[in-house]
Amino acid sequence: MLIIMKPNATPQQIENVVQKIRESGLAAHLSQGIETTLIGAIGETHEMSTDLFEVLDGVDMVKRITQPFKLASRQFHPENSIFPVDGFKVGGEDIVLIAGPCSVESKSQILETAQAVREAGANALRGGVFKPRTSPYSFQGLGEEGLEYLAEAREATGMPIVVEIMSQMQLDVMLKYVDVLQIGARNMQNFNLLRALGETRKTVLLKRGLSATIEELLMSAEYLLAGGNKQVILCERGIRTFETTTRNTTDINAVPVLKNLTHLPVILDPSHSTGHADYVAAIARAGIAAGADGLIIEVHPDPAHAVSDGKQSLKPEQFAGLVKQVKAIAEVLGRRVAPIQKPVIVGW
Amino acid sequence: MLIIMKPNATPQQIENVVQKIRESGLAAHLSQGIETTLIGAIGETHEMSTDLFEVLDGVDMVKRITQPFKLASRQFHPENSIFPVDGFKVGGEDIVLIAGPCSVESKSQILETAQAVREAGANALRGGVFKPRTSPYSFQGLGEEGLEYLAEAREATGMPIVVEIMSQMQLDVMLKYVDVLQIGARNMQNFNLLRALGETRKTVLLKRGLSATIEELLMSAEYLLAGGNKQVILCERGIRTFETTTRNTTDINAVPVLKNLTHLPVILDPSHSTGHADYVAAIARAGIAAGADGLIIEVHPDPAHAVSDGKQSLKPEQFAGLVKQVKAIAEVLGRRVAPIQKPVIVGW
Amino acid sequence: MLIIMKPNATPQQIENVVQKIRESGLAAHLSQGIETTLIGAIGETHEMSTDLFEVLDGVDMVKRITQPFKLASRQFHPENSIFPVDGFKVGGEDIVLIAGPCSVESKSQILETAQAVREAGANALRGGVFKPRTSPYSFQGLGEEGLEYLAEAREATGMPIVVEIMSQMQLDVMLKYVDVLQIGARNMQNFNLLRALGETRKTVLLKRGLSATIEELLMSAEYLLAGGNKQVILCERGIRTFETTTRNTTDINAVPVLKNLTHLPVILDPSHSTGHADYVAAIARAGIAAGADGLIIEVHPDPAHAVSDGKQSLKPEQFAGLVKQVKAIAEVLGRRVAPIQKPVIVGW
Amino acid sequence: MLIIMKPNATPQQIENVVQKIRESGLAAHLSQGIETTLIGAIGETHEMSTDLFEVLDGVDMVKRITQPFKLASRQFHPENSIFPVDGFKVGGEDIVLIAGPCSVESKSQILETAQAVREAGANALRGGVFKPRTSPYSFQGLGEEGLEYLAEAREATGMPIVVEIMSQMQLDVMLKYVDVLQIGARNMQNFNLLRALGETRKTVLLKRGLSATIEELLMSAEYLLAGGNKQVILCERGIRTFETTTRNTTDINAVPVLKNLTHLPVILDPSHSTGHADYVAAIARAGIAAGADGLIIEVHPDPAHAVSDGKQSLKPEQFAGLVKQVKAIAEVLGRRVAPIQKPVIVGW
Repeated sequence: MLIIMKPNATPQQIENVVQKIRESGLAAHLSQGIETTLIGAIGETHEMSTDLFEVLDGVDMVKRITQPFKLASRQFHPENSIFPVDGFKVGGEDIVLIAGPCSVESKSQILETAQAVREAGANALRGGVFKPRTSPYSFQGLGEEGLEYLAEAREATGMPIVVEIMSQMQLDVMLKYVDVLQIGARNMQNFNLLRALGETRKTVLLKRGLSATIEELLMSAEYLLAGGNKQVILCERGIRTFETTTRNTTDINAVPVLKNLTHLPVILDPSHSTGHADYVAAIARAGIAAGADGLIIEVHPDPAHAVSDGKQSLKPEQFAGLVKQVKAIAEVLGRRVAPIQKPVIVGW
Repeated sequence: MLIIMKPNATPQQIENVVQKIRESGLAAHLSQGIETTLIGAIGETHEMSTDLFEVLDGVDMVKRITQPFKLASRQFHPENSIFPVDGFKVGGEDIVLIAGPCSVESKSQILETAQAVREAGANALRGGVFKPRTSPYSFQGLGEEGLEYLAEAREATGMPIVVEIMSQMQLDVMLKYVDVLQIGARNMQNFNLLRALGETRKTVLLKRGLSATIEELLMSAEYLLAGGNKQVILCERGIRTFETTTRNTTDINAVPVLKNLTHLPVILDPSHSTGHADYVAAIARAGIAAGADGLIIEVHPDPAHAVSDGKQSLKPEQFAGLVKQVKAIAEVLGRRVAPIQKPVIVGW
Repeated sequence: MLIIMKPNATPQQIENVVQKIRESGLAAHLSQGIETTLIGAIGETHEMSTDLFEVLDGVDMVKRITQPFKLASRQFHPENSIFPVDGFKVGGEDIVLIAGPCSVESKSQILETAQAVREAGANALRGGVFKPRTSPYSFQGLGEEGLEYLAEAREATGMPIVVEIMSQMQLDVMLKYVDVLQIGARNMQNFNLLRALGETRKTVLLKRGLSATIEELLMSAEYLLAGGNKQVILCERGIRTFETTTRNTTDINAVPVLKNLTHLPVILDPSHSTGHADYVAAIARAGIAAGADGLIIEVHPDPAHAVSDGKQSLKPEQFAGLVKQVKAIAEVLGRRVAPIQKPVIVGW
Repeated sequence: MLIIMKPNATPQQIENVVQKIRESGLAAHLSQGIETTLIGAIGETHEMSTDLFEVLDGVDMVKRITQPFKLASRQFHPENSIFPVDGFKVGGEDIVLIAGPCSVESKSQILETAQAVREAGANALRGGVFKPRTSPYSFQGLGEEGLEYLAEAREATGMPIVVEIMSQMQLDVMLKYVDVLQIGARNMQNFNLLRALGETRKTVLLKRGLSATIEELLMSAEYLLAGGNKQVILCERGIRTFETTTRNTTDINAVPVLKNLTHLPVILDPSHSTGHADYVAAIARAGIAAGADGLIIEVHPDPAHAVSDGKQSLKPEQFAGLVKQVKAIAEVLGRRVAPIQKPVIVGW
C-alpha cells in the first residue's frame, strides 16, 4: 500500500503514519519527492483496508498496489479453475451453454423448453422461480412449485438446473432441488447471501451487479471463496450506462480482463446485456470470440406470451441456429462446445 | 400506455395488439401516423408491465404514459406525508438532523458521539451494527452488542436510533431495539427485505441505490407502501458516475425532482455522497438549499481512529458548526431545524 | 410526435397545442386517457425539434415517435451503403482493416509500419499528424511534415491513408494529402467541422464521442449527409463509464444496433475501446463476430518507444496473428477480409 | 510519478525503467515490496505524460502523484484569482449573476430580456448567436446580426456580454463585440479553440464537458493559462449519467472540489444542469450554498415561444424571485451578490 502525504505534511504526521504501518505488522519505506513524501507499507496487505491510513492527519491519498482479492486472483493461482457440474466441466477448454426461460411458468412450458434447448445443444437449463421485480405488482415467480417442474425437466433431459436465489431464507428449499445457485445482479453485494452460499458446496453462478466494477465482482467472489466454496462461475450481464437503445451495455472488455485477473470461469449473458432478442446472437458470438467460457441465454417457446422478459427471449429455433455459429467460432479459437454425454430422453 | 407499431406492421398484428389490450381490461385507441400506427391502451395501467405488449409481433416500442408507482406518487396524494418519529416530525416544515458514527465501535464511543451530536442539535442518532463491506476481510459490525450500546445512548440522550438492516434474518433483533430501520444503497432492490419491512409499522429510511434511477427508488418505496407501511423516508446518497475525485456524485437534482414526484420526505446523506469530510459541509448546505427535509451525517469523536468511513466523518465540533449554517439557510427558506423537545440528560 | 399533457391541463391549453401543431404543418390527433390527454402530431416530423411543444403550458412530455435522423436511417434506405475507397469497398460483404501508429513520428517509423501492416493484410494506413492531447504539454503531432511521410508510405505500399482532422483550418492541407478524413471522438459534435466536411466529397470516418449516444452519433452523420457527402463510415471506439480497468468500455452492442438503424458501414476501434494491447485481439475478434464491417487498430514497430498510445499499440507480428483470426471468424459469418488487389511494392 | 512493476518483472526491466527516468531528467527511487517493486520518478513531472513509462516492459501501472496541471493548481497559487469584468469582479467575495436567453432571437427580445434581468440584479448578459445543435435541421443562430443586438443591449443596460464561440473561424467577429468568450461543453476539448483563446486577453468562461472529469476540465483551463490568458472562469453545467428525469446531473460536488483544487473562479449553470425551469431555482440556491462564485441562468421573456431551450428558461419575474433568495443565502455565507455600479439606463 502506498501512502501519499500532503505537500505540507509535518515530520510528526509522517512519523505517525510510519508508526501505524508498523503496528499493522508491515514495514514502512519512505521516499522523499520534490513536493510530497511517499510511504510504502510493505507486507501482506490483501486483507487490509485503505481506510486505516486514509484517515490519518497529513495523508493525501492511499493507493493500493496489491489487489484487494487474493483467493480469486490469478496471481496466486495461475491455472484456470476447472470444476465439474453434472454432465460437463466448466472453466477448461469446453464452452458451456445454459439456456431456458426467464421464469418457470408451467410444467409444460419448462418441459417443452428444456427438451428444445437440449436438442439444440444446451448443457444446462435455467429458469427462475423467485423473481426480483422492480414493481411489487409484477409476477413474482412460482416458488417451490416451479422448482418441482424444473426437477422434472432435469429428469426428462438429463440437464442440471440453474436457479436464482434471492434470500438466505430460500436456501433450504433451493439446496433440495438446484444444481447451480445463481446470485443475480441486484444481489451481487448482498453480503449475507454471499456468506451463506460460501458455506455450501454448491456451484454458484455470480452475476455482476449492473453498476459493479470488475474489482467489486471479484471481491464478491472472494466472499464465496473465503467461505470455502471454490466452485464459482462469474457472469458478465451488462452494466448501466447513459446509452438507452439497449437495456444494458455489454461490457465485452470484462471478458478478457476477468480472464486475465482471475482463474475462475467467466460466462456472458447476452439476453440481459442487450435486452433485445434481435441483438442476442451477435453479442453471444462476440462473447465467445472474446474468450468467454460459456453463455447463459433466455429461450422461451412462445416469447410473445412469456410472463417476463419475452422481449429478450429467443425462440428455440433461433437458439439452435445460434449454437451452430457458436460452435464454429469456438473452433476458430481451438475450443469446442461441451458435448452432451447423456442421451436426451424423449417420450415424456 | 402507448404502443408504437413498426412501420411495416400488418393489420393482423395491429388487431392482435388491440385484442390483448381489451383482454387486459383496457380500452384501445388507434391513431394512424404517416409512418406508424400508435395504439393507446387506456385504463388503470399503474400496475401493468410494458412487457405485456412489447413482446407482440409488429410492436416497435411501448411507452408508459402514467407513472408505474401510485402509492408513492404525489399525483394521488398531493399533500406532503408528515409522520412522527420519537421526538420530532419528518416531512413537514421542520428539517431533521440525523448524526452519528458509521459503525458502533464501543459503548464509550457511541455514548460520547450521541451526547456531542445531541448538544449540537441532532434529532436522531445513527450507528451501524451490521456492516455491508466490500471485502470479506473488513470489520463487519458488533451485531446485537452494538444495538445494546445504541439503546443506552438513546436512554442517555432521548434521541431515537436509526440502524441499517441488511437481511430479513436480522428483523427480530432489530425490531427489539431500533426506531428507524435503514435500508442501505446495496439493498434498495432487495425485494424480500422490502417486502418484510413493508409488513412492519416501523419507520423506514430507504437509501437510493448507487446506480438506481429516481423511478426505481420510488418503485422500491412502492414495495414498502404496498405492504401497508406508510412511514417511508427517502434518502439521496450519491450515485456512481465516471467522476472519481469524490466517492460518489451527489445527485442534487434528485432533491427537487423527488419533492415534485412524491409526497414522501426526502433527506440527503452528504457523507456518502462525497466521501470526504472536507466536502460534507458544502453539500449539506446545498441539500437544504435545494429543499431537502433533513440530513444524515457521519460524525465520529476521533475520525483518525474510526474503524470505518473515518475519511468522511466530521468531528463533533465540525458538525456543530455545520448545524449553525443549516439553521440559517433553513430560515431563508422559511423552515427551521426541528427543535429538541426532550432535555439532554447529562451525567451518564 | 406525441404530446402528453399534464393530468390537470385545461381545455384551452390542449387547444393551444393543437393549434401549434397545425401551424407547423402537421395534423393533430387527440386521444383522451383516464389521467391525461395525448395529442399526436402527425406528418413529416424528422426535422422538427421536440422543443416546439415542450415549452407550451400544460404539456408534460413530448415523445418522438419517428427517428430524428432521416438520411442516415435504414428505414428510408434499406440497402447497405457500399462505397469505394482506393483499393477496396467498404460497407458490403468485405471486412476492411485499417492499421497504423497513433502518431506519425518519423519517416522511417511510418514507412516501416506501413509495409508491415500491408504484409499482414491491412487495407488502409492510419496515422495522426494533428493530435488532440489532454495536456498542453504533450506532443501535438508533426503537422504537414507528417502528411508528407504518410503520402510516401501510400506511394510505397499502395494503401490509402486515414488521418484525423481537428479543425476547419486544417481542411486545405488535409484535402491535399488524405484519402479518408477522420473525425475524432472529441470532435463528434464539432458542428462547424461536420458542416465543412459535409461539403467535401472525401470519405469521412466518424468516431463516436466518448459519451455520445448512438442517436447522437447518427445525428452527427446526418450533418455530413445533409451536406451531400454520402461516404460516411461510423466507428465505435468505446464509451466512458464507471469502469476503470480499461481506458473505455467497448459498447459492443452498438455494432448490431447501428447495423439495424442505419445503412452506413460500421467499424470498431479496439485499441481505444480497451486502451491495452493485451485486450485488443479479443475485442477485435468480438467486433467482427458481432457484425462490424471493419477494424481500425493501432500498430507500432516499437510500442515501448512510441510517443503516444504505446500502451495500446500492437506490434506488427501481433497484428499479423490477429488478422488470421479475423479471417477465420469472417468466414464463419460468410464474409471475408477485403483482399489486397495492388501488389505490395518492396525495396523502398 | 510512481511506476509499479509487475510481480514477475526482471532486474533488467527494472534497470530499463530506472534509466528512462534518469534520461527524463528525474531521480529514481526504488522500493522493494513483497510482491512488486515500486519505482518513484522524482522531479518536475507536471508536464510529463504517464505514457512515457507505461509502455516499458515489466511495468504494471504508472500512478501520477503530482497533479498534471500546474498553472491552474491552487497548490502553486494559494490565493483566489480575482479579475475584473466590465462593472464587477469575479472570483472574490462577490457572487456574480449572468442571465439572458439561450439564443438571441430578435432585437426586441434581447433588449427586453437585458433590461428585465438588469433590473432583477444581473451583472452580465448572456445570449447565443452561433448555436451548437444536435440536429442539422435546428435553428443555428443569428450570427453577427445577433452580436449587433447584444451590443445594443450592452449600450442600453451597461452590462457586459457573454457569448459562446464555437470555432476559431469566429474569433475575429467575436473579439469585435464580446466581453466574455464562452467555450461550450461540447468544445471543452477542442484544443485548437483553447489554444486560440489562450492567446487572446479576453476573459473566457470555460464550461465543463458533459462527460469530462474535473481533472480534464482543469487540463483544458491549463491550455488557456499556458497561452498566457489568466482570466478563466470555470463552469459546472451538469454531467451525463444514467439518470433521465433531468437533462443532466448537476455535479454539485464539483463546486467545493474545484474551489479546493484551483484558484480560478467557479460558477454553476443550473439551467443546463437540470434542463427544467421547475428545478432551476432549487439548484441555483444549492450552488451558492455549496460555495459557487456565481450563476449563469437562462431567462426568456416568453419561454413558450423561445426558439431553443424554452423548457429550461425562467421568466424574468421568476429570475427576480430567485435573485432575492440567492442574496439571502450569500449573506449566510458572509458573501454578497456583486452590486450594480452603473445605473440602469431606461427609455431605449
